[in-house]
Amino acid sequence: MDGNCDEPTPGPGQALLAVTMAGICATDLEIVRGYMSFEGVLGHEFVGTVLAGPRHLKGKRVVCEINCVCGKCEMCQSGLSTHCRNRTILGIAGHDGCFAERIAVPEGNLHEVPDSISNEEAVFVEPVAAAVQVTKQVPIDPRMRVAVLGSGRLGLLVAQVLRTVGCRLELIGRNPDSLLVGEKKGIQSSLVKDIAPRNDRDLVIDCTGSPQGLELAMRLVRPRGTIVLKSTFAQAAPINTAPLVVNEVELRGSRCGPFPDAIKMLARKQIDVLTMISKRFPLDRGLEALEAAADPHNIKVLLKIAK
Amino acid sequence: MDGNCDEPTPGPGQALLAVTMAGICATDLEIVRGYMSFEGVLGHEFVGTVLAGPRHLKGKRVVCEINCVCGKCEMCQSGLSTHCRNRTILGIAGHDGCFAERIAVPEGNLHEVPDSISNEEAVFVEPVAAAVQVTKQVPIDPRMRVAVLGSGRLGLLVAQVLRTVGCRLELIGRNPDSLLVGEKKGIQSSLVKDIAPRNDRDLVIDCTGSPQGLELAMRLVRPRGTIVLKSTFAQAAPINTAPLVVNEVELRGSRCGPFPDAIKMLARKQIDVLTMISKRFPLDRGLEALEAAADPHNIKVLLKIAK
Repeated sequence: MDGNCDEPTPGPGQALLAVTMAGICATDLEIVRGYMSFEGVLGHEFVGTVLAGPRHLKGKRVVCEINCVCGKCEMCQSGLSTHCRNRTILGIAGHDGCFAERIAVPEGNLHEVPDSISNEEAVFVEPVAAAVQVTKQVPIDPRMRVAVLGSGRLGLLVAQVLRTVGCRLELIGRNPDSLLVGEKKGIQSSLVKDIAPRNDRDLVIDCTGSPQGLELAMRLVRPRGTIVLKSTFAQAAPINTAPLVVNEVELRGSRCGPFPDAIKMLARKQIDVLTMISKRFPLDRGLEALEAAADPHNIKVLLKIAK
Repeated sequence: MDGNCDEPTPGPGQALLAVTMAGICATDLEIVRGYMSFEGVLGHEFVGTVLAGPRHLKGKRVVCEINCVCGKCEMCQSGLSTHCRNRTILGIAGHDGCFAERIAVPEGNLHEVPDSISNEEAVFVEPVAAAVQVTKQVPIDPRMRVAVLGSGRLGLLVAQVLRTVGCRLELIGRNPDSLLVGEKKGIQSSLVKDIAPRNDRDLVIDCTGSPQGLELAMRLVRPRGTIVLKSTFAQAAPINTAPLVVNEVELRGSRCGPFPDAIKMLARKQIDVLTMISKRFPLDRGLEALEAAADPHNIKVLLKIAK
């Protein structure tokens, strides 16, 4: 013990990490607005170094899955451990997050980062995994007409993941600057105001983080088509669900995804995340960093934490 | 022509029917409140007799599918004709309904009613088909924990259809009288106020017709479980969609179903609809009948039309 009361003490089966770098995502901003009623250290996207933990990972660079699970409840036992009944979630529910110099996490959550992935890229493993989750939930085929709504952080990652799978893809957003980021990666992009929704897309992925996103998704998706909902908001919003019934739409909530797939895609440079980084702040300018992340002119904002 | 301006003239490919008996459903009541902005003759659940139409059906008792389709658009061509781009819907959109002595309908929509089904039973073919649709969208297995929300007209039919398929079924409603109707058919029933939702049902079917139904469904369904949404409302309602995302729930809108399956189930007496009939009115007391159908003490209200 060094007398620093902020130093977390790893419990049984936990590792202690030095956080190298962290990313700010929409969920962090929603939590600041009251989502999940979380109190504690924010942050769940990060890369760090193992200070204490399993021998084979000691001193290694790692990323960390965010759900800390019991392994015993009926969800864990049925293979749905990300939905563990007793889970805590880094920086979101019952577990301090990564906007700190040190973090204690379950050893089983760690994944070693290969040398071919830089620290700045590694910060994106968690959100890339969340983007990959869409392709695990909905089989994508090349003829499918797919719209990704929202050209923010998550939308750009989902669009890139879908581009690697192959489909008739369109990224739809409000911000010309961030759409340009997608276009530079060869993704067909449109401004919301320029599209005329006519219920003809097979799949619509709502990454807008706003209730208007779901409304637009319902006007874009074809009858018997699928909407994947990636957005969570702090508040209830007025939604007319009748189009879901009338058009027999399938709506799928989608949350965390597989880290190994995300690590593989980043290692193979199939996803370009570096051009998405708008700003970098040191940890002691964290509040400024959160404000920057809330500014739609910025895409990804990183916190550089290791000294 | 008999000079009666209410007598519809069948167009090409249409049959003229004498309506014998009709049923009032929640959609009719929602339309009266403004849903679909429909203007015209209400009503889409009925049994009638063919006055003019295909030779083999002349004089026969028939029921009639409600979607009048073009057969040419990409929806019809891809086998999704109930979602025809150019469809009209009896008593709901662009086509006069069955709360009238005569109705003109597409010949292709007609299904002959076997002698083993009475007129009062035949009125239920359309809503029983809508109930059967749930089993077409979600594979049911005997271990599944299934909750049907809403013990009104549709909920009682959905619960009965599910009972024939076999699963761990519970009917949940607000009205002790209508729950009793379910219980008499051997369906485990609970009052909303007596249940403690803990996200442990594999499948929840919302037949409440109210936004609170969806909220409750989200508290009942397990992570990665399925909600089937049968309710349409006239208005947008404040809904917190975060639980859908966090629990990765699949929400499926569900509308019309297969008439042949419904006819078969009614012919085999697998579904008891007669005890669901609360009141019968002649057509000239139609407004009174609509009021009776809106009274939660009544389950099904019928209009007796043929003189």
